[in-house]
Amino acid sequence: MTIKVNDNFAALSKSYLFSEIGRRVREYQEAHPEANIVRMGIGDVTRPLPQCVVNAMKAAADELGKAETFRGYPPEYGYDFLREAISAHYAEMGVEMPADDIFVSDGAKSDCGNFVDVLGDNDIYLPDPVYPVYRDSNVMSGRRITLLPSGRDNDFLPMPDENCGTGVYYLCSPGNPTGAAYSAQQLARWVEFAKKSGSLIIFDAAYEAFITDDCPRSVYLVPGARECAVEICSFSKTAGFTGTRCGYTVVPSELVFDGVHLRDLWARRQATKFNGVSYPVQRAAQAAYSPEGMAACYENIAYYRENAAMLASVLDEKGIYYTGGKNSPYLWLQCPNGMGSWEFFDYLLDKANIVGTPGEGFGKCGEGFFRLTSFSTHELTAEAVRRLREVL
Amino acid sequence: MTIKVNDNFAALSKSYLFSEIGRRVREYQEAHPEANIVRMGIGDVTRPLPQCVVNAMKAAADELGKAETFRGYPPEYGYDFLREAISAHYAEMGVEMPADDIFVSDGAKSDCGNFVDVLGDNDIYLPDPVYPVYRDSNVMSGRRITLLPSGRDNDFLPMPDENCGTGVYYLCSPGNPTGAAYSAQQLARWVEFAKKSGSLIIFDAAYEAFITDDCPRSVYLVPGARECAVEICSFSKTAGFTGTRCGYTVVPSELVFDGVHLRDLWARRQATKFNGVSYPVQRAAQAAYSPEGMAACYENIAYYRENAAMLASVLDEKGIYYTGGKNSPYLWLQCPNGMGSWEFFDYLLDKANIVGTPGEGFGKCGEGFFRLTSFSTHELTAEAVRRLREVL
Repeated sequence: MTIKVNDNFAALSKSYLFSEIGRRVREYQEAHPEANIVRMGIGDVTRPLPQCVVNAMKAAADELGKAETFRGYPPEYGYDFLREAISAHYAEMGVEMPADDIFVSDGAKSDCGNFVDVLGDNDIYLPDPVYPVYRDSNVMSGRRITLLPSGRDNDFLPMPDENCGTGVYYLCSPGNPTGAAYSAQQLARWVEFAKKSGSLIIFDAAYEAFITDDCPRSVYLVPGARECAVEICSFSKTAGFTGTRCGYTVVPSELVFDGVHLRDLWARRQATKFNGVSYPVQRAAQAAYSPEGMAACYENIAYYRENAAMLASVLDEKGIYYTGGKNSPYLWLQCPNGMGSWEFFDYLLDKANIVGTPGEGFGKCGEGFFRLTSFSTHELTAEAVRRLREVL
Repeated sequence: MTIKVNDNFAALSKSYLFSEIGRRVREYQEAHPEANIVRMGIGDVTRPLPQCVVNAMKAAADELGKAETFRGYPPEYGYDFLREAISAHYAEMGVEMPADDIFVSDGAKSDCGNFVDVLGDNDIYLPDPVYPVYRDSNVMSGRRITLLPSGRDNDFLPMPDENCGTGVYYLCSPGNPTGAAYSAQQLARWVEFAKKSGSLIIFDAAYEAFITDDCPRSVYLVPGARECAVEICSFSKTAGFTGTRCGYTVVPSELVFDGVHLRDLWARRQATKFNGVSYPVQRAAQAAYSPEGMAACYENIAYYRENAAMLASVLDEKGIYYTGGKNSPYLWLQCPNGMGSWEFFDYLLDKANIVGTPGEGFGKCGEGFFRLTSFSTHELTAEAVRRLREVL
């Protein structure tokens, strides 16, 4: 007799995607040592932190090095200075969100994964293709998962239909991996559905800063969303914080299920299983919201956007269907000539020495699609575009 | 019809302890504005970070501010440089622990709370009194909890007995709140019991750096522990990282239950629900292990130890029973004259203007006991000692 492990882990599919990509690239490079491979599959930012963000982090580190200014345990939900800065960020978008409803964390991935802790045994609805964290964290909890298929017919933006019941719906807009962003009208339909069915929307807004048109940058721009949606966001893609680690989750006080305020449960969860974010990191995040910080962040985002526009232009030229590219650092394209995801991966690697991400790695509906990203340099992106023009 | 929240949260007891302390102190101060209140209840460090740690954090922040040295997502289990530094720390203690079995995190509290994710529905055994995170994280998961009573008869070090079955055992040594540390012989009995019963020990070693005698600083100093124990540790109390946030959990590859490597489950859990620790924080933690860093850390620990010795001396003088004081920043004393925890709290506040922590806040077996801590300054501790000498 021994203790029991969580046997739901056995139901997780092994995540072969990036190791399989690595293996194929390695083998190709060994067979073709002269090949100058360009990597356009990277989902991580590459531009450095704004100088004022670096300075704020360093000043905070100095504070921790002096007895008079030393700080111990941070508040579990984030320092007021940062919660208020995030609240002000919402105000600028036209959303009134009290600092008390904002919970600072070490990143959106942690919050996405940990949010299952406060929920009961519900039906989980996920878009297909999907960011694997939504799926895997729910598989670990033994939840029933229903996939919402997406494709060209709905431009990779699934909408509620007759198969949708009361449950927890994960929406990511602009989407990862598809780059597709919901319009205000579409989100209003989701909110209406959630309220009518007693469902919860977990809205992942990690890519909101890439939106250039009138798609909502926050679900709370849609009336009624406070009563049915949690929003998870991050400094990773906005301020280049993938290595610095900071994010936040909004749980409005209006979110009440069965008489229980979800906000109170998340507060208790965080106070019990989390001890707040590093003080220098919180000061760095605060600095990202300064006028100087915001200007520098949007300069970096503009840089990635130019890359995305370069990649989009060659797809437009060739008449290839894609989503994203605008409103998103991702381009999600249909593999030409009916090729499968992996077939196109090998084709692109061999003919153009370009590495991207096969869409089927994100779900069955990703088969026949392919993700390119705009996080590389201008130079390498231009080189990739030149090669794509030849082989597509 | 609506979604279901996790109704196990309803079974959590409200945590009144620190808010109740705050209320009583506030009311006393208002009624006695002249009272110079000394706070000896604080469980947080106060000494600043070593300069080399600050410098390492600042240098890493600078790296993130330059394109050539920018780093994105950190490895989910920690950078090799830090995992190897922790492995070397174990080697210095005489424990061979491969870096692959060490998982860096944002703190011991997160790991303590999150470890339930990889375990099934087991019986949970907790010492009484107890660090509330062990209890609350298991209540949230709906686990059956059995308390292991402790008191003067076992010097607040519960041992396995005939009531102990196969399950998950949380041990904290040196203990919070009791400061009591298990001897090698006692831990050997725990390991023997765990192996025989197929149990798992979750060993919280957050206070290991305070050990001065031959009590084991790691459970892995006990033969066989690799097959039955996970160890959770932290830079908070060793290197003053309560505001910087870094910890680690060791899951040896020898830990196998029902054919499953627990290490693989924790790795998958962290890769899914966590995205690694801030790069500058990891560099700071690495610097704490440098010869200069370690010297500075132990200087701070020596400072707290002197405080503990001062507090212990007055308890010795008065013949008051206590645990801790050596091997620990905490002193856990029996309230004099048969007073209850809160009665003694009020007595000490009124007669000596000293604030401590009533033991019953940590569990039923804490009734009649009281916690003082050594994290204040020499000056305030000396003042507290002077007053205690008068009123005890």
